[in-house]
Amino acid sequence: MTICGYPAQDLWQKEYFVKSCQEKIMQICDLSKGKKCALIIGSPITDLDRDQAIIFRNSAIFIKDGKIEKIANKKNLPNHEVFDEKRYFTDSSALSTHKLNGFSFSLMICADLWENKNLFLISQHQIDFAIAVNSSPYSIGKEQTRFEKAKKFSDKCQKPLIYLNQVGGQDSLVFDGDSFVTGQYGEKILEMKNFEEDFAVIEILDTHDVKVLEPKNYKSNFSQFSEKLHDLNLKCQKTAQNNYQACILGLRDYIYKNGFSKVLLGMSGGIDSAMVATIAVDALGSKNVALYALPSRFNSENSMVDAKKCAKNLEVELKIIEIEPLFQKMLETLPNSSALTKENMQSRIRGNILMSLSNDSGALLLSTGNKSELACGYATLYGDMCGAFNPIKDLYKSQIYQLANWRNQNIPAISIYQNINLIPQNIIDKAPTAELRENQKDSDSLPDYAILDQILYQIIEEQKSLSQIIELGFNKELVEKITNLFYKSEYKRKQAPLGAKISKMAFDLERRYPISNNYTK
Amino acid sequence: MTICGYPAQDLWQKEYFVKSCQEKIMQICDLSKGKKCALIIGSPITDLDRDQAIIFRNSAIFIKDGKIEKIANKKNLPNHEVFDEKRYFTDSSALSTHKLNGFSFSLMICADLWENKNLFLISQHQIDFAIAVNSSPYSIGKEQTRFEKAKKFSDKCQKPLIYLNQVGGQDSLVFDGDSFVTGQYGEKILEMKNFEEDFAVIEILDTHDVKVLEPKNYKSNFSQFSEKLHDLNLKCQKTAQNNYQACILGLRDYIYKNGFSKVLLGMSGGIDSAMVATIAVDALGSKNVALYALPSRFNSENSMVDAKKCAKNLEVELKIIEIEPLFQKMLETLPNSSALTKENMQSRIRGNILMSLSNDSGALLLSTGNKSELACGYATLYGDMCGAFNPIKDLYKSQIYQLANWRNQNIPAISIYQNINLIPQNIIDKAPTAELRENQKDSDSLPDYAILDQILYQIIEEQKSLSQIIELGFNKELVEKITNLFYKSEYKRKQAPLGAKISKMAFDLERRYPISNNYTK
Repeated sequence: MTICGYPAQDLWQKEYFVKSCQEKIMQICDLSKGKKCALIIGSPITDLDRDQAIIFRNSAIFIKDGKIEKIANKKNLPNHEVFDEKRYFTDSSALSTHKLNGFSFSLMICADLWENKNLFLISQHQIDFAIAVNSSPYSIGKEQTRFEKAKKFSDKCQKPLIYLNQVGGQDSLVFDGDSFVTGQYGEKILEMKNFEEDFAVIEILDTHDVKVLEPKNYKSNFSQFSEKLHDLNLKCQKTAQNNYQACILGLRDYIYKNGFSKVLLGMSGGIDSAMVATIAVDALGSKNVALYALPSRFNSENSMVDAKKCAKNLEVELKIIEIEPLFQKMLETLPNSSALTKENMQSRIRGNILMSLSNDSGALLLSTGNKSELACGYATLYGDMCGAFNPIKDLYKSQIYQLANWRNQNIPAISIYQNINLIPQNIIDKAPTAELRENQKDSDSLPDYAILDQILYQIIEEQKSLSQIIELGFNKELVEKITNLFYKSEYKRKQAPLGAKISKMAFDLERRYPISNNYTK
Repeated sequence: MTICGYPAQDLWQKEYFVKSCQEKIMQICDLSKGKKCALIIGSPITDLDRDQAIIFRNSAIFIKDGKIEKIANKKNLPNHEVFDEKRYFTDSSALSTHKLNGFSFSLMICADLWENKNLFLISQHQIDFAIAVNSSPYSIGKEQTRFEKAKKFSDKCQKPLIYLNQVGGQDSLVFDGDSFVTGQYGEKILEMKNFEEDFAVIEILDTHDVKVLEPKNYKSNFSQFSEKLHDLNLKCQKTAQNNYQACILGLRDYIYKNGFSKVLLGMSGGIDSAMVATIAVDALGSKNVALYALPSRFNSENSMVDAKKCAKNLEVELKIIEIEPLFQKMLETLPNSSALTKENMQSRIRGNILMSLSNDSGALLLSTGNKSELACGYATLYGDMCGAFNPIKDLYKSQIYQLANWRNQNIPAISIYQNINLIPQNIIDKAPTAELRENQKDSDSLPDYAILDQILYQIIEEQKSLSQIIELGFNKELVEKITNLFYKSEYKRKQAPLGAKISKMAFDLERRYPISNNYTK
């Protein structure tokens, strides 16, 4: 889907949208005339079914010297997790093979590579290599899954495979690139950058002989190919780096693609807002991030010290707006409010101030609730849940600590900001608190995050039932309490801002639950 | 989906959920032992594919005398509009026929009836009649669509058809019942109530002879069958009544199904909040609705008079909370705010107060933005967009006026409140205004709603492109402006509360657009 991006959702149902994609293809096709270069471009196209009715296909257009040589239509349309392709496209039954410079190759679109039937068909054809073009979104460990699919391909087909993946953020999805080439026996010949555009030149002499060439003789708009492959040995280090870069790229592309350049957020002195501020500075640079402390009577002096220290590390001024007079006026307006209502009031006053600042500055407000909090409904709707985007939405609290520690020692490859030790150690070490009432601690109403996150992971990612989780050895009352909190807060998550998908079960596109739901097993 | 309701979304992917549905089926099955009564119950079931892997099916279970006689599996799985059945279920290729008391009948599940292939198969079988069980959500004119499908059935199969549909609200969907029976030639023999549970007894002597019997000899938990069929001649009257009842039922079931009984809302003296207040009183009764006027310096005395009058008609006390002191304090806190920011501030102060009242009273807050407003992004996110449910979310402003006039003269069949003339004429007659600045009128920044709604209808329901709409004769600049407003406000709609689906293109389940989207043709 090079032309329109992925997923274009219901735009794909509009004939005039798909036609305008096709017009772009024709323009590119014309530009290729006389050039010694063939192109493969992904796009939706219109086609006719047996009754001559218009249908849509997910296709890869193979262009050579100003001419469309052939169109490969997707055979295997995924309709699970974040994908809805059966809503939009008609699948093709024909396998696509193409000719170029005396070579013949097979062209697969994303999930086509995942289907045994296709691998069997390819193994039966006299082809020299295969190309798979993908919009495969990032999630933890996804690069391993992709490589296993490639391994299976080489086991069954014994051909070189060129695996290409989109790079960039699109709403809640982050496409992490990480394109690669494997040889006849599945050996990795080339691995390209992840989370960045990259450029490489491959020479195929025959099925047994695939070479990576120096790209210096080739013109490119993309950043130059880096000779050295990533050399990260520690797997958890690699996951931390990948997760962190997905947060950066997801945020950066959301802001840029929507025509903005600046963001702002409320900085409490806690780990979540410190993390979001750091990601924002890494994604957009210090001068494009505004930080506000909005203390009420319940915010400690220590929190302010921590927030200031973190802001200073990020080279951003921390502006202070006291909410106490507004909170006082709300209490006068509604004098009989309960303790919980008073907590929400403060959060919503902050939401109003931050949205006002956003309205006036043109900077988008970032929300700072982590996955554990959103799962339990411990964020305030229309309060700290206000925002255009939430970069840490799909990270459990335990993962936030991991990433903070990792970022304090490392500079991500795609980061604009090039310093380390950004998040003060005290922010990482102290007990988490919302500071919405006197001496409040998260642990007053929730178990330790280490336990909470394990139970939530079982409910969300593993999709286990109440009794299955208890069987794993967790405390029955605790599991019941958390399951209940989780299901009862569905309505909040439905109104939450988008965030970058990191896990295999993020809240935005792939988790689809009714709000009206009495089934809470 | 009698057992679990429709749509159960990702619950359908959980094996333990589907198993517990099957357990309920077995309990009902046991209860039927020795009773002179056969049952058809919709449910998800587990099945095995050719590789012995577990798959899920959308099924109707035919039970007789304590035994499952046969299971009909859905053949045609819809995956468009609000439906995602290919995400969850595997389709069946076999046509289902069943035997009962010497008769043979075909059992279809919802969209099975819509497919030519199924009608052909049924026409080839020796069957006496067909039963179709449905979860068909309400939208304008849907009863006509259903009847046309039934007509097509009788044209092709020449058999009686018993068409049964779910009744009730489920999140944004309202199932309107309106079950019916047609005879061999497509003639309507029975039409059951819409928007209410109903009960009827049919006697089938043979294919030519289907009779409606008096149900008085049959015990039922449902309301008694009404002999007189609906006798509404004016089509637009009928549409108004249906739309209004969908709003009542959608709201009522959302509140009840989520374990609540009371609602509250802000009452400005304008048509939208007057309409929502009226629907709320009709759905839940006066004593379960709390109304608040929240005036700032910009709210006119006339608006307060209108609001009070409407509240009095609804037999609800209108409580008044001045927001001026809070607004003043916000202006002191952020003295350099722009005019637009000051408007949003007031709306968000109201949101904070209403949410605080909701937190303390356990009444759910209703949001009052109409479809025209939400389409143009003229509602304030975290302000008047706060709320658990918005009963008028899928009604254009012009439709709100229609419904207000209709309700002033009519009492809906399912209404708890039994008075007419509820919305004061002045609320209907006066020019609409948000009253967020001096002498503001909606017409300052938007065209007349009569024009606006036509353009929005072309964009949303008809899915026309910019140039197609201009070709219809609308002003080019105006169409461009509105298209732009519409696409730029996608992010607001993503965070909006649910509302009852009325149109063929509601914002909750069937309209799926990216936020990051530069394509605005």
